[in-house]
Amino acid sequence: MIVVLAGGVGAARFLQGVVQVVPQQQFTVIVNTGDDRAFYGLHVSPDLDIVMYTLAGIVDETQGWGIRDDTYHTMQQLTRYGNEDWFLLGDRDLATHIHRTNLLRQGKTLSEVTDLLRIQLGLQLHILPMSDQPVATHIQTPAGLLHFQEYMVKRHCADEVQDVVFTGASAARPAPRVLDALKEAEAILIAPSNPIVSIGSILAVPGIHDVLHEASGMIVAVSPIVGGAPIKGPADKLMRSLGIDVSAVGVARCYRDFLDVMVIDEQDTQLAADIEDLGIPTVVTNTIMHDMTAKANLARSVLEAAGVTM
Amino acid sequence: MIVVLAGGVGAARFLQGVVQVVPQQQFTVIVNTGDDRAFYGLHVSPDLDIVMYTLAGIVDETQGWGIRDDTYHTMQQLTRYGNEDWFLLGDRDLATHIHRTNLLRQGKTLSEVTDLLRIQLGLQLHILPMSDQPVATHIQTPAGLLHFQEYMVKRHCADEVQDVVFTGASAARPAPRVLDALKEAEAILIAPSNPIVSIGSILAVPGIHDVLHEASGMIVAVSPIVGGAPIKGPADKLMRSLGIDVSAVGVARCYRDFLDVMVIDEQDTQLAADIEDLGIPTVVTNTIMHDMTAKANLARSVLEAAGVTM
Repeated sequence: MIVVLAGGVGAARFLQGVVQVVPQQQFTVIVNTGDDRAFYGLHVSPDLDIVMYTLAGIVDETQGWGIRDDTYHTMQQLTRYGNEDWFLLGDRDLATHIHRTNLLRQGKTLSEVTDLLRIQLGLQLHILPMSDQPVATHIQTPAGLLHFQEYMVKRHCADEVQDVVFTGASAARPAPRVLDALKEAEAILIAPSNPIVSIGSILAVPGIHDVLHEASGMIVAVSPIVGGAPIKGPADKLMRSLGIDVSAVGVARCYRDFLDVMVIDEQDTQLAADIEDLGIPTVVTNTIMHDMTAKANLARSVLEAAGVTM
Repeated sequence: MIVVLAGGVGAARFLQGVVQVVPQQQFTVIVNTGDDRAFYGLHVSPDLDIVMYTLAGIVDETQGWGIRDDTYHTMQQLTRYGNEDWFLLGDRDLATHIHRTNLLRQGKTLSEVTDLLRIQLGLQLHILPMSDQPVATHIQTPAGLLHFQEYMVKRHCADEVQDVVFTGASAARPAPRVLDALKEAEAILIAPSNPIVSIGSILAVPGIHDVLHEASGMIVAVSPIVGGAPIKGPADKLMRSLGIDVSAVGVARCYRDFLDVMVIDEQDTQLAADIEDLGIPTVVTNTIMHDMTAKANLARSVLEAAGVTM
């Protein structure tokens, strides 16, 4: 089994590559749920949905999230009832949140609900939330502690970042099978996701960081920072605010105490020496996932670096 | 204040007439909630919504329920997740159920939620659910006890009706203002709704039937049965099964211990004598609500019979 630690859009696109190269059944994906939030009383799990929709082939490719050709009629009417409308939820997408919320209220865990959803969507890889307990990523700003979605989507990352806080993390436990999957993995891949709020929140769940030290499989990360900027999202602002260099070197430092190999982009060839100075070998390749061929090529490089037979 | 006891489509169309003749502010509508049911964990109140959507001018006139030009994208996706799809809920309509459920979960009562919704929909008449406690109309059949929506919508009224049971009614209380509104009403109008499952469920809430005896205002009912058949819905099957004549006479018998005047259709002129034999004066008029003019004319006849100055 190969385990992938995943955030949202970058991870989902990376996964599109790996499942071209190795059968889905051989993958377990552990997904960030720190971005989860209730909207209108419905439990929304953005990263779980992005991963599922993308691999199921129904994602809105342009946005990277939501369902293709979706409409927004429910939200329009919700707005008429005085509700906020800064987090766009399409009509088809809302079905996921309604269904998930209904099952959670019936007593199922987020892991159980996620497994049912991925089966209904025809996926064969295992998808695990990082935890069944609520962990909410918050950004400490001069305006107060903001939920990550509020910081990013509602306020467009405009606030100064003073700290990142994973509310609930200390009381959370890894979801069932997470620790075993990591321990037993042939390889552990860290997707090109935000190292602070996507991978960082997974690592904040007690037990996960520790087990990475014990893992027998190779641990290989793909840098989400290319040429000094993230491909997508606010990783640069968060990293800079926390005093982390906005580069593949900064990402490598985040993972240095467990990372075996760092995969960086050809544009960052000159950074290889700095990363190797940390004791982490690098693989330099094209990490820009323009199309399915590029995704598959990146996957091959990463899996090869991890010693996986394809 | 004029009080109207209301079910769904027939009542909503009748109300479209009365608000043409008397300002909305002078009306309090007490609505059946025995048809309420959870779908996908969302609280659906069909009769409250039909009344609100109709008076707000957004109802799907052809169906008599739901919102005009609605789409069904959420339900299509919910079906993909293995959910039932026999109760059609449009995308715009779902916003009402999501919003209602969210407010109920936050601790608001159904009365409070209904008042917020009717204000957001721009309505000036008062709309009260019959009770804030759950009352669920069930049909006893050879196949078992079926929720009314299951009997009607899912199984198309195909089961033999052995009894009608208002589950929860004995523990329910009239919603705030219901009893006072009835006591103080200048007139009480019973809309042309199903006397068993729409008006009958309202009367099953302890206290409501009794207060009708004490009411100082005239009580005037419009028969939903014309020419031996209901205009809409399964009233005939239910009445026949319970041994009630499927006619305006049968309806008058349901209400005989408190009714002051029965309004019947011109097609049923020959029934006037039988109703008057029960001690109930009749008004014969056109009760078929083809268009807004017919609705206003019916409203004028009913309000005149109730002694309301227009």
